Parts: sequence; structure tokens; C-alpha cells
Amino acid sequence: MSEPTVRITTHAHFSAAHRLHNDAKDAEWNRRVFDKCNNPHSHGHTYGLDVTVEGPVDPLTGWVMDFGVVKRVVNERIVRACDRKNLNVDVPFLAGVNPTAENIAIRIWDVLQPAVSPGRLVKVELHETERNKAVYTGPT
Amino acid sequence: MSEPTVRITTHAHFSAAHRLHNDAKDAEWNRRVFDKCNNPHSHGHTYGLDVTVEGPVDPLTGWVMDFGVVKRVVNERIVRACDRKNLNVDVPFLAGVNPTAENIAIRIWDVLQPAVSPGRLVKVELHETERNKAVYTGPT
Amino acid sequence: MSEPTVRITTHAHFSAAHRLHNDAKDAEWNRRVFDKCNNPHSHGHTYGLDVTVEGPVDPLTGWVMDFGVVKRVVNERIVRACDRKNLNVDVPFLAGVNPTAENIAIRIWDVLQPAVSPGRLVKVELHETERNKAVYTGPT
Amino acid sequence: MSEPTVRITTHAHFSAAHRLHNDAKDAEWNRRVFDKCNNPHSHGHTYGLDVTVEGPVDPLTGWVMDFGVVKRVVNERIVRACDRKNLNVDVPFLAGVNPTAENIAIRIWDVLQPAVSPGRLVKVELHETERNKAVYTGPT
Amino acid sequence: MSEPTVRITTHAHFSAAHRLHNDAKDAEWNRRVFDKCNNPHSHGHTYGLDVTVEGPVDPLTGWVMDFGVVKRVVNERIVRACDRKNLNVDVPFLAGVNPTAENIAIRIWDVLQPAVSPGRLVKVELHETERNKAVYTGPT
Amino acid sequence: MSEPTVRITTHAHFSAAHRLHNDAKDAEWNRRVFDKCNNPHSHGHTYGLDVTVEGPVDPLTGWVMDFGVVKRVVNERIVRACDRKNLNVDVPFLAGVNPTAENIAIRIWDVLQPAVSPGRLVKVELHETERNKAVYTGPT
Repeated sequence: MSEPTVRITTHAHFSAAHRLHNDAKDAEWNRRVFDKCNNPHSHGHTYGLDVTVEGPVDPLTGWVMDFGVVKRVVNERIVRACDRKNLNVDVPFLAGVNPTAENIAIRIWDVLQPAVSPGRLVKVELHETERNKAVYTGPT
Repeated sequence: MSEPTVRITTHAHFSAAHRLHNDAKDAEWNRRVFDKCNNPHSHGHTYGLDVTVEGPVDPLTGWVMDFGVVKRVVNERIVRACDRKNLNVDVPFLAGVNPTAENIAIRIWDVLQPAVSPGRLVKVELHETERNKAVYTGPT
Repeated sequence: MSEPTVRITTHAHFSAAHRLHNDAKDAEWNRRVFDKCNNPHSHGHTYGLDVTVEGPVDPLTGWVMDFGVVKRVVNERIVRACDRKNLNVDVPFLAGVNPTAENIAIRIWDVLQPAVSPGRLVKVELHETERNKAVYTGPT
Repeated sequence: MSEPTVRITTHAHFSAAHRLHNDAKDAEWNRRVFDKCNNPHSHGHTYGLDVTVEGPVDPLTGWVMDFGVVKRVVNERIVRACDRKNLNVDVPFLAGVNPTAENIAIRIWDVLQPAVSPGRLVKVELHETERNKAVYTGPT
Repeated sequence: MSEPTVRITTHAHFSAAHRLHNDAKDAEWNRRVFDKCNNPHSHGHTYGLDVTVEGPVDPLTGWVMDFGVVKRVVNERIVRACDRKNLNVDVPFLAGVNPTAENIAIRIWDVLQPAVSPGRLVKVELHETERNKAVYTGPT
Repeated sequence: MSEPTVRITTHAHFSAAHRLHNDAKDAEWNRRVFDKCNNPHSHGHTYGLDVTVEGPVDPLTGWVMDFGVVKRVVNERIVRACDRKNLNVDVPFLAGVNPTAENIAIRIWDVLQPAVSPGRLVKVELHETERNKAVYTGPT
């Protein structure tokens, strides 16, 4: 009989500025579409991040993988890169992308997916405010 | 290659009274089954509501759809209809239904499903208390 | 040297209906002042309640008083009286009072104040919604 | 047409000690793998537990099943067994297992699965800290 | 006998960018003191704001003042001015001040203090992250 | 005119085991008084800790003191000492004390009070469960 599969989630947060803007469009289009989120001086969020990894429970340890390893990966690759940063200009893994919650979640997926072995990344949940979040579960 | 699919969730709340009661049954049956929730003077909740919409990320905007549009739809169609109301008598979209958390979630789905285009409604989560919630993900 | 004084807080919640209404005023006055909170069919809340008791730390036990005793008092005298009730008609200790958050907090104080000995009641905090609360710290 | 299927979730919590340890391995292995979680004097958590049950909405009651029944089952079989206990030695349903969040979630599933009829257990979510949780959705 | 005095609190939030910087000091001083919070491209927060007003309970209404009025004042004077803004350049009431949590709380006090009559402003609580907040209770 | 005084709070958490026991009393007394909290195998909590420091706002920096310094002090002196520990035997600053929430809060005060200069420690808030906390504001 195979080992049961469990999901583990770790939470982190980072504080960052961003501005919604499509560089391929003119100023009027950006103002109309993104409205106050297009503020040229930027605004920002305390982003909450929940990263979920899935895998069989290792019979030796009783866990999918060490929570501490997932935490360290998230801190080193995401929090350190994004905390107290401007997401439009300071974060290499967000280069060339309009930093909506959706796009940030997708790019965080791309960074973490190869780094959480032996777990398998299954969900990236990004909270922008107390009331808004985006969830990406990978390419289909 | 197709655009990645992402889910976005917006949170709202409303304060309402309700009473659990099946009009087709007699008083004794209702008291026995619904117990204190059958109180004829009603009781109430601060309902928390999480509405989740899914769709491909629009390459022009970088979002599934404008969060502001989802919020407005939820506020105009659900919060305005339910806040400071009695769910047994004041809310047209709950007419004829016993307002359990399950039934409220289903009816909210029916109201919102045609209204969140181009997103696709995928989840309605209704919190009754700090410890109870119902989740409806649509007809199967 | 006297024992240090510490405050302990216990949290509870109850689900109740209410309607803001001053019986000494006419319908028009009540509608104008209380607006949607005057809905004659009532509305409701999941009330959160934080009760704080203060006292010297008992050197035998190391606590102000048994948390379990505070919990039991709050459950027996407040939660049992208010949960799944209509605060305008079902709760003896709210008789004759317009059940605003402020008045409910004051009446809860009056019920609990004699009942938490050897602790001294110092704060009653009543949450009506995720965003509104009233705090009463006793007569001055 | 069949009744719509809804999920209901109830939340509980319990306070317990545990120590991560594989009895089949020596002390050095356990220290290296489990690090500070291998503390021989134990540490502990306030565990948060979300239990989710799914089923068709009963047309007579308008609910999947009585929330009160789910709560009672969770309190009697899980909270009573685990609260103020040491999970390595005091809890019969955890006998012989290293009490990681993953393993506790799986064993809670095994206890609750036969006990929530007519609902069908679909998720056990166990929070160890403010930032870590494990989720088990049953054998696949 | 005078009316009992109660405190009421309303919660709001806004999303803004800021940069910690003392214009009277050189770049090296600012980098050393404010470290990553001195990032020239700014960072940001989802600020949580709790505003507390105190007063006697009006015997006609049973409340200190209409919660709706406090909410409207906070939304019109604070949230509208700060949401999706850069606090270093976009907000008139923050002109000339280094936008630390402490200074923002003090300036919010100055804006709200004359505007919440007949209540008396007694506390402004500003949350910068999930783990940091500043509280100002007025000049002493 | 003097600088305004502001309070800043930082949140942390640690996971620990404890057992309520008065060594000067016999087993029967301890069982009767502390009941399930006297479990000889210990139980545990995920303790939440809010530390509040007060002081005038420094006109050069705009803050009471660097939040980062308060965080570091709390992490180095409290979290490192208590996390994944048994509070009855592993923590030097709790030696000889029955580790109730009240006593832990008092001892944390004693450790932190000399260490948060130029701020002045004004509150230690210790959460044991989702529903219980103790608050110590220093000797009177």
C-alpha cells in the first residue's frame, strides 16, 4: 500500500510597492483601465503568501518534507527578493511583467516549483489586502 | 500556448437575521430538528462571504478581471440585498427557501454566476460564525 | 512586596438578532435615526465578546483566577442567554434597553461584575461585525 | 434533478504537547533530522482543526447535516482525546505514530471518517502554528 | 447620575507606498538608519486602521454616535486620501513628514480629532504588517 | 513643545510545552486545582506574544525606535529561549515558577524591560489559545 499523500502550507509576508501599468499601451489607456492602481508614484501592499506543497508522507520522518526547508526556500527566494522592494523595478523574477496579484502568483510559482523537492508545489496563494487574493495552482 | 488560469477571491460581509424553519412541517418537528435555531423571534449572524472567480489571465491587463468589478457585483447584488435584513422575509433571491448556510450559499451562486463574466464563478464560501462555514462550488 | 497585578481575557461568541428602536419615539424618528438598522423584521450579528478580569497573581496557583471559571461564567450568564436569541425580546438582562453594541456591553458588565470574584471585571469588548466594536470599562 | 452538494466546515482547537521522534532510529539520527522538534522534554502547540464534510442538501432541512452533530463528534472524539494531552503518550488513536502534523491529520481522518454520516468526510486541516498547517483529504 | 461612557472602534484599511527618508540628512545616513526601508523606489503596505472614539451613551439613541458617521469620516478623510497613494508625495496631510507608522498615526489623529464630534477621539491604531503596529492616543 | 509619545507593538510566536504544578503542594492538590492542565506528561500551546514599547517620536527618524531592534530583542531573548521548549524545565528565566500565562508574561517583562531602550516597555500580552490571553503592564 502506498503512503498517504498530504499537503503542507507555510505562510509568509512581505511589504512592497507596485503600480499596475502596461508599457505597450499609452497613458490614457493605463489610467482608464487601472484607475487609481495606475498612480505613477506607486502604491503598495503587505502581501500575505501561502505556499502549499504536496507529497507522500515519508515513513521514516512522518512528514512530507521538513517545514523548515519550505520556509527557508520561501524566505530566501521570495521574501528576500520582494520585501521592502518596488515590484515594478527591483525584483528580477518579475522583470517584464505587470505586477498584478495574478502575475506575481504565477512568477512565484515559477521560482518555487523547482525548489521544493521532494515535495510537489500545488498552490501559491497571494493576499493583496484583507479582502483580495489570487490563487495559482500551476499550468494545466 | 494558452494563458495561465488563476482564481481571484474577494471578501465581503453582511449582518442579517434568520430563522431555520420548514414551512411544510409542523411546529413540533421544526423545534425538534432545528432546536434553538428555530427561535420564532429569529437570531442572526455577521455573515462572511468569499466569492471566487476563475479565468485565464488577460495578457493586456495581467488580471483575470478587475477586482473592483467583482467587488461591485457582490456589493450590489448580495450585500445590499442582505445587509441589515431578515433572510426569511426581506431578500427576494431567498424567497421560498429555508435560509441555512447551505441554501444561502447556493442562492448566492445562482445570483452571481451570470454576473461575473468574463470570469467563471467557481466557489461561494459563507461563514456563519467564527467556527462554521458552508462552501458551494456549483452544480455537478 | 505585593503580588503583581495581571489582566486575563477570555473570548466567546454568540449569534443573535436585534433591531435598533427607541419605543418612546415614533416610527418616522426611528427610521430616520437608525436607518437600515431599524428594519422591523430585525437583522443580526455573530457577536464576539472579550471579557477581561484583573487581579493579583495568587502565589499558590500562579494565576489571577481559573480561566475555566471565567469561561463558565461567561457561557452560563451571557452566551446561554443570548445565543440564537432576539436581543429585543428574548434576553431578560436586556429588557427595556435599545440593544445597541454600547448598551449590550454595559448590560453584560452589570451581569458579570458581581460574578468574577476574586478577579475584578475591568473590560467588556463587544464586536458586532468584522469592523465595529464597543468597549465598556465600567462606571467612572 | 439531484440535490446540490455542499461542503460544511467546523473549527475546533486543542492544546497539546508533542515530540518528533522515530523510535526505530537512534538519538543522533533523531536530533539531526528533527532538530529542536526532537527536544526530549517536548514542546507543544495550540492546534487549530478544520473538519470538512460534504453531502447533498437534505430537502427537508436545507442542510447537509446538523452542524451541531459534526461539532459534537469532533469534540468528543478529537478535542476530548487531545486537549491538554501529550500526543506521544496520552492519545490512543495516535499510538505508534510519530506525531507530525501530517500524521495527526491522517489519524484524525481515520477516527472521524466513519462518524460523520450522512455527510462524507472530505478534508482534515490541522494548524500547528500561525504559519504552518497540514491538510489531508483521504486515501487516493 | 451621568450616562455611562463607552468607546467605539471602527476598522478600515488602505494600500499605499512609502519610503523612510529624512530629507535633512544625506543619502549615507538615510541608508544606514532606515536600511531596506530607505529603498529609493519605495515599498508599501496594506495599512490597517482602527479609530476609537469615546463618549457618553446618548439616552435617545443608545449609542455614543452613529457608527456610520465615524466610518464615513474615516473613509472620506483618510482612506480616500491614502488608498493607492504614495505617502511621501500624494497625501496633503502627510506633507513634510517622514511617513513612519508613528508619524502617520499622529497626522491621522490631527485630521480626525476635530471631525468625530460629539465623540472624542481617543486612539488611532495603525497596522503596517501582520506583526507591527503603532498606537497614538493624543498629546499629553 | 515636547515630542508626541507613541506606542509600537511587535508580534511574535513560539511553540512550547508546559504543565501547571505547584511543587510545594502534593499531587492531589495539584490535580484538583489544575485539573487537566496538571497532566504529568505536559500539554502545550502555540503562544502568541505582543510586546509594546512607548516613547517620544525621535525627530530625526520619525520613530520611537527601530522596529527591527524590538523584533531582534524579542527573538533573541524570548523566542529563541522558549520555542520548541518545555517551559517547566528548559527556560532559565522561568526557573522556579509555575508557568501559567500570568507568570510567563511577568517573567517576559522582567527579561525585556532592561533591553528595549530608548523605548519604555509598557505591555506584554501573551496568548495561550485562540480564546485566552494574559496581559501584564508592569509593577504598580
